[in-house]
Amino acid sequence: MAAGEGDLKLLGLLVSPFVVRVRMALSMKGVSYEYIEQDIFNKGELLVRYNPVHKKVPVLIHNGKPVCESLAILEYIDDIWGTTGNSVLPADPYERAIARFWANYIDDKMFPSWIGLLKAETEEEKAEKVNQTLAVLMHLEDAFALCSNGKAFFGGDSVGYLDLALGSNLFWFEALRELFGVAFIDEGRTPLLASWAERFGEAAAVKEMVPSVDKALEHAKKFRAFFAAAAAK
Amino acid sequence: MAAGEGDLKLLGLLVSPFVVRVRMALSMKGVSYEYIEQDIFNKGELLVRYNPVHKKVPVLIHNGKPVCESLAILEYIDDIWGTTGNSVLPADPYERAIARFWANYIDDKMFPSWIGLLKAETEEEKAEKVNQTLAVLMHLEDAFALCSNGKAFFGGDSVGYLDLALGSNLFWFEALRELFGVAFIDEGRTPLLASWAERFGEAAAVKEMVPSVDKALEHAKKFRAFFAAAAAK
Repeated sequence: MAAGEGDLKLLGLLVSPFVVRVRMALSMKGVSYEYIEQDIFNKGELLVRYNPVHKKVPVLIHNGKPVCESLAILEYIDDIWGTTGNSVLPADPYERAIARFWANYIDDKMFPSWIGLLKAETEEEKAEKVNQTLAVLMHLEDAFALCSNGKAFFGGDSVGYLDLALGSNLFWFEALRELFGVAFIDEGRTPLLASWAERFGEAAAVKEMVPSVDKALEHAKKFRAFFAAAAAK
Repeated sequence: MAAGEGDLKLLGLLVSPFVVRVRMALSMKGVSYEYIEQDIFNKGELLVRYNPVHKKVPVLIHNGKPVCESLAILEYIDDIWGTTGNSVLPADPYERAIARFWANYIDDKMFPSWIGLLKAETEEEKAEKVNQTLAVLMHLEDAFALCSNGKAFFGGDSVGYLDLALGSNLFWFEALRELFGVAFIDEGRTPLLASWAERFGEAAAVKEMVPSVDKALEHAKKFRAFFAAAAAK
């Protein structure tokens, strides 16, 4: 059996950016798989069995063996289906190192900032999270100039690892704009990211995997109720 | 110029596990470089210039271009000096994904737990951090059984990525035992890790890069004073 063959399942949550980026990568590679939606507010047996440490989505299950953590899954997809379609990671070692740096930055700094906005209880907390997210995006604007080298994407001429890492958050920015009236990426402050976001949204393999803003809004409502209940305990 | 040639500098802090693992990897590859110690309590111009986003060590500067974040540096070292000495990352894509998962676990869960012990002010906080660290190490005991497959190291027959990720913390465990009387790795609770830690400490390339426990104790003193001063503000 060739490395890429066999049974492939993905445990996910439709509105999770971490899941969305994995689905985009699998779509880029033209790989088919069984998608199994999880209830993250009431974690089921599959999630506990296949990701016992974190009990988080996404989990990619390849021939019965689980791979957890979205960025590690992107690397795995590239390793297994490397010769199918475009590479996810850059081919150059230095560009790869830089892409890994910024992808970690997105997950460690950007995600906690914007998700913090959904958890914020006071106007002061909200303003703090908005400012944090905006500051992170200013760094990412600079990163785009550095990584893209004048080309269309972080990954050069086509969508790559860092495009997926950041781009999988974009539909949430739309939802946050509706909820809080703040534009995280806009032409005035982050012109490079603004035009990149348009191109990213148009990319064929990516487009079909973007959840609707309504789905995000619906999830945001559940998420805020869940956090409010937890905080009230 | 071949990929691995040219000017190589490392900005570091002798007692940082993140720096120690990079030095161990470079030693494994037999690569020579200029080591430049940084004052992390008073960050200098080099650190701000080469890691403007986080201003943290280690930074590997290869022909003037910086690579930041220790795990990304380990991948870079393997990419650039892949044919010299043993590989850092496993060759098999699945094993590589698992190694990346656990290395992130070490940095995201284990490091904050034990460093939290140095920051803890009350006995209750200390007990909490001790328990967190012990719980994480129980998971890593299981991970060793899974990854080593009955061999000497996480990486199989020789020291690899995950050995470096965890092993670079071991001298700190010695220091914490002196300071707080707690044995984080011991034969009773974590027998696999206990014998692994002995083998790891004996590995030639690794041995010479382990800082003395006294250096760690000295740094712990400065670190606690720094945090106490910050908390008093």
